[in-house]
Amino acid sequence: MTKKMLASDNNSGIHPAILEAIAEANSGHAPAYGDDSWTAAATAKFKEQFGEKTAVFFTFNGTGANVTGLKSMVRSHQAIICTEGAHIHMDEGGAAEGIIGGKLLTVPSSDGKLTINRIAQQLHHIGSQHRSQPRAISISQCTEMGTVYTLDEIKELCDFAHSNGLYVHMDGARISNAAAFLGCSLKEMTVDAGIDMLSFGGTKNGLMVGEAVVCFREELAADLKYIRKQSMQLGSKMRFIAVQFERLLTDDLWLENASHANRMAQLLAEGMKKISGITITQPVQSNAVFAVLPQDQLEELQKLHAFAVWNKEHGEIRLITSFDTTATDIELFLADVAKICE
Amino acid sequence: MTKKMLASDNNSGIHPAILEAIAEANSGHAPAYGDDSWTAAATAKFKEQFGEKTAVFFTFNGTGANVTGLKSMVRSHQAIICTEGAHIHMDEGGAAEGIIGGKLLTVPSSDGKLTINRIAQQLHHIGSQHRSQPRAISISQCTEMGTVYTLDEIKELCDFAHSNGLYVHMDGARISNAAAFLGCSLKEMTVDAGIDMLSFGGTKNGLMVGEAVVCFREELAADLKYIRKQSMQLGSKMRFIAVQFERLLTDDLWLENASHANRMAQLLAEGMKKISGITITQPVQSNAVFAVLPQDQLEELQKLHAFAVWNKEHGEIRLITSFDTTATDIELFLADVAKICE
Amino acid sequence: MTKKMLASDNNSGIHPAILEAIAEANSGHAPAYGDDSWTAAATAKFKEQFGEKTAVFFTFNGTGANVTGLKSMVRSHQAIICTEGAHIHMDEGGAAEGIIGGKLLTVPSSDGKLTINRIAQQLHHIGSQHRSQPRAISISQCTEMGTVYTLDEIKELCDFAHSNGLYVHMDGARISNAAAFLGCSLKEMTVDAGIDMLSFGGTKNGLMVGEAVVCFREELAADLKYIRKQSMQLGSKMRFIAVQFERLLTDDLWLENASHANRMAQLLAEGMKKISGITITQPVQSNAVFAVLPQDQLEELQKLHAFAVWNKEHGEIRLITSFDTTATDIELFLADVAKICE
Amino acid sequence: MTKKMLASDNNSGIHPAILEAIAEANSGHAPAYGDDSWTAAATAKFKEQFGEKTAVFFTFNGTGANVTGLKSMVRSHQAIICTEGAHIHMDEGGAAEGIIGGKLLTVPSSDGKLTINRIAQQLHHIGSQHRSQPRAISISQCTEMGTVYTLDEIKELCDFAHSNGLYVHMDGARISNAAAFLGCSLKEMTVDAGIDMLSFGGTKNGLMVGEAVVCFREELAADLKYIRKQSMQLGSKMRFIAVQFERLLTDDLWLENASHANRMAQLLAEGMKKISGITITQPVQSNAVFAVLPQDQLEELQKLHAFAVWNKEHGEIRLITSFDTTATDIELFLADVAKICE
Repeated sequence: MTKKMLASDNNSGIHPAILEAIAEANSGHAPAYGDDSWTAAATAKFKEQFGEKTAVFFTFNGTGANVTGLKSMVRSHQAIICTEGAHIHMDEGGAAEGIIGGKLLTVPSSDGKLTINRIAQQLHHIGSQHRSQPRAISISQCTEMGTVYTLDEIKELCDFAHSNGLYVHMDGARISNAAAFLGCSLKEMTVDAGIDMLSFGGTKNGLMVGEAVVCFREELAADLKYIRKQSMQLGSKMRFIAVQFERLLTDDLWLENASHANRMAQLLAEGMKKISGITITQPVQSNAVFAVLPQDQLEELQKLHAFAVWNKEHGEIRLITSFDTTATDIELFLADVAKICE
Repeated sequence: MTKKMLASDNNSGIHPAILEAIAEANSGHAPAYGDDSWTAAATAKFKEQFGEKTAVFFTFNGTGANVTGLKSMVRSHQAIICTEGAHIHMDEGGAAEGIIGGKLLTVPSSDGKLTINRIAQQLHHIGSQHRSQPRAISISQCTEMGTVYTLDEIKELCDFAHSNGLYVHMDGARISNAAAFLGCSLKEMTVDAGIDMLSFGGTKNGLMVGEAVVCFREELAADLKYIRKQSMQLGSKMRFIAVQFERLLTDDLWLENASHANRMAQLLAEGMKKISGITITQPVQSNAVFAVLPQDQLEELQKLHAFAVWNKEHGEIRLITSFDTTATDIELFLADVAKICE
Repeated sequence: MTKKMLASDNNSGIHPAILEAIAEANSGHAPAYGDDSWTAAATAKFKEQFGEKTAVFFTFNGTGANVTGLKSMVRSHQAIICTEGAHIHMDEGGAAEGIIGGKLLTVPSSDGKLTINRIAQQLHHIGSQHRSQPRAISISQCTEMGTVYTLDEIKELCDFAHSNGLYVHMDGARISNAAAFLGCSLKEMTVDAGIDMLSFGGTKNGLMVGEAVVCFREELAADLKYIRKQSMQLGSKMRFIAVQFERLLTDDLWLENASHANRMAQLLAEGMKKISGITITQPVQSNAVFAVLPQDQLEELQKLHAFAVWNKEHGEIRLITSFDTTATDIELFLADVAKICE
Repeated sequence: MTKKMLASDNNSGIHPAILEAIAEANSGHAPAYGDDSWTAAATAKFKEQFGEKTAVFFTFNGTGANVTGLKSMVRSHQAIICTEGAHIHMDEGGAAEGIIGGKLLTVPSSDGKLTINRIAQQLHHIGSQHRSQPRAISISQCTEMGTVYTLDEIKELCDFAHSNGLYVHMDGARISNAAAFLGCSLKEMTVDAGIDMLSFGGTKNGLMVGEAVVCFREELAADLKYIRKQSMQLGSKMRFIAVQFERLLTDDLWLENASHANRMAQLLAEGMKKISGITITQPVQSNAVFAVLPQDQLEELQKLHAFAVWNKEHGEIRLITSFDTTATDIELFLADVAKICE
């Protein structure tokens, strides 16, 4: 299956440099469960990016990272405020409710962003013993709609949340794409803006397997290793997860991969815009392009290419580029779309 | 860190053939979450070993495999009977209770094996609304004490369990070592003997990361994919987990690795027995050697080698060999022990 | 505090006949936990109302009844479809998520009713391993908006649910008021219409404490006693809960109480309609009246009477009558409203 | 069923003064969920007994009180140390595991008491990410074996627990019997001795329904109302639970009831000791008598009287007296035993 898909960045493989790093770490024995030199080195790289007070806990997948991080902040009688389209609400099989036991309070959002007004509406019942008490908000950067919060937007959300006794969690499955778009550092977008807990995405940006819970609050970090273990996210041969991150954070590979994917999305969007009958429905700020196609053309296209139908009723599709998408992949795809839509 | 440790088979690396398989699977795009050809091929290999009716669900780690499998069988008002030393009770951070919400009913065992008598003692309150109702037993093959159930022992346990309305779960983190010891097929030891659900161990036998829930009951398999997802054990780039198993089950690599580790344990035990002051405390039937050393010698040895102190009070240690332990590793270790104990 | 409130039927006391029944049951010793003659007699009364196949499990409160019943139908990887205003979603402190571990899939509803269209929208992802799988719908009769499903509406919902593999749960905290409004039997409105599990309300209709899980499915009834116990809803001196229901179901006391409350609500609504500036916002079909008042008058009224402000923004209030509300209570209230609004 | 049973103090009825108090509270309307004057009055009585800093949360039953209190102290990745015979382990249907998600670490005990040595054995793995972390101990006063901790024993346990970072929970389902035996105040036995959280038993000492979570730690009290609600232990017509406690704590009714039951147990034990073939197996310090009978006599006695067979193998029975047991009840029972055993 050599044709690149635009269905998901999870469909891409392992970046060659990452695979090489795994192979290099495969020498002899090492202590399990994170007491090894590769985990130490990867942790040091995270501290370089996010500051010395950062605590890092590697997990297997994004759901594991999100739920582990959120569980450290929220108890079962409490609630997490997020958008209706949040990954933790829509695509994690009920893990948040099942593992934390708490409630997700969801609010509508057309562009994937949470707003202060929407959060405020969920705070009316603070203090009422009949209601799950909001304790955290969770935002996705990039959002599930491919949009990117500005630094100011993040800061405002964090300030509002903190002043209302709420922690702020960031689902950063595609945080590198957001940083590439904003042209800012990872630190500026997270701990400097007030984020308390981050899921740092690896798999969608070239890793084989691995995500990281990045914690900026000492009081939350204390129990995270136990929460990770109970959440079944503690890898035994940890070095092979850690070394992937160590390499990703070396020589800006994370940024290079994300920037490339973003560029491919721009190329794709520009091409799509030129084809009559197609509407781009969200600003293209990362590696996702959302577009509406006439129903017949959509069905034709599905025969040729794999992609996600986001909203069947409206004929909206989602196209995702990744670190290994090439300009040729985009051109071939656009040619097929043009042929179908002409 | 090139000296091989006897602390755990989790300290070993990736078997070269497994790493090669990962590299080969790293070509282009593939559908995520298991809809790829490598997952199909790996599943076929499992069916070869365990029969056509087998359903396989890959997970990240052993705790994930155990809890996912058990959760499909046991609801929160029910209980699982296991030994006091069972991995699910002692070493999984309370995941069984936390994720399933059910109770572990533990019974004492000196050799790591569950017996019909001990199970029977836990059945007195079936039907009492005040008690969690036993719904499954969980046995480990090999046990946490390195011992191996015979086929007859497994069959008797399964018959007794089934006739009392209990499912049988097998924690097979080291099942390959057990099969190597018994000289039987994986199928004879599991589905043929009456096992309903198996955690098939990969990581301890040469994989980088990955375990498999192997389900022999159609009614339990139906919901397992949802349970796995909620349990945060669904990998996105699944092909890279699957291909490791595909390779492990090709050309009997699983058996070769386990047999080698078992042989190294025999070599180690034979050497230990010759050293005065040392007592081997469990039959050596797999890749584990349990031994008691005088306190002073134990402390000396700890300065030179990494291993687990199993019972500090009794001076009992656990030594574990793995697929990559060499006869030279054993000789060097024995030489150090001999020097200390003479 | 002798002035009757219109804030909630939970503010009323114990119906004198119920208190008398408690006193009569207070003679000597009786087996605990439901093995007594009063529990047997109450169970028989439920079978009279709902049919011989009915299984009854008394609980302490409505949340306990709802969650116990739902937990028998839904596992943690599954979901319950209900309205955004459902009591189980809004007013039970996250018990459904916390105790079941499953997800509530909520849909908008202006009159408190669930519709087939809204349910259908939640079924698109059946079979997708990424989503909590819908396994039940929960409807409230009366709804939280005081409206009442017709028998046909219930039947249609049940047929649609069953044909899609979903159980139907009815939160009947005020089921007696609904039966009084429809003029039908409890059986017609529940088991005959296809309901699988009912929370039968007692406390709001004159009991001191007690609700009942009424189960119409043998396969669900089997484990309910264990689920009730783990859900901390098993009373030790059960006879005193049971005898209240035994009395409530004798000589149609349940119907008499509910009919009276409904009549008082009609009286109240008729009076309100005559006062200028007030709008009744929901059909008055049970013991609840929803009305919009000008903001200033609302605040004046709050100084004189206790009631719930349902929607602060819109100036909507909820008034609830109960078995002990008198015509004089209504008249006094209306007089105050009239004075304020003139 | 007028013959008094010795099976359980749950088989007794409502103390007349308590029932009278319920009737008196049944006047007009009162705010629900605890915002009423009876709840305020009952809370004041608890503060009289336990000190001004006490926070009280009424619940429905003992399991509800225990689990609610423990859940405020222990998170799901943590553990509670208790005896193998603890009510929370043996008789609460897995509620602790199901509702808290945490682990019970049980230790053997012949007299029902927890000891420092036994606790210490469970602390070896503090800090290990593989183990549920002990966060609380739970002791029962009286114990499930009818024995009573001395004030010194409680103090020592509390000091040891606190110095190891553990909270101390007391299951006081029969705390009044313990206070009657020790001749001390409730305060001396709890908050003064270092107890952090108490389940104060009402039902077994003459109430119709109701237990109380009594919290001595401000940081734990803050969230208890939310935890109680999610744990389905918040009563709507709260005044009727509260007024029972208000009356129980007036004019030392709690102590009078418990003292009487204790005296009846002494009478019973003295009578039993005189009958040949019977061995009293535990010190009689509260309202429980444990005795061993020859198997044949035990079976004969079961035909005449209801009581619990504690240990079938050993022929051990448990006899429980209550506030309404009379000297005549005891004499009649002893006469039957004597006849059977002679």
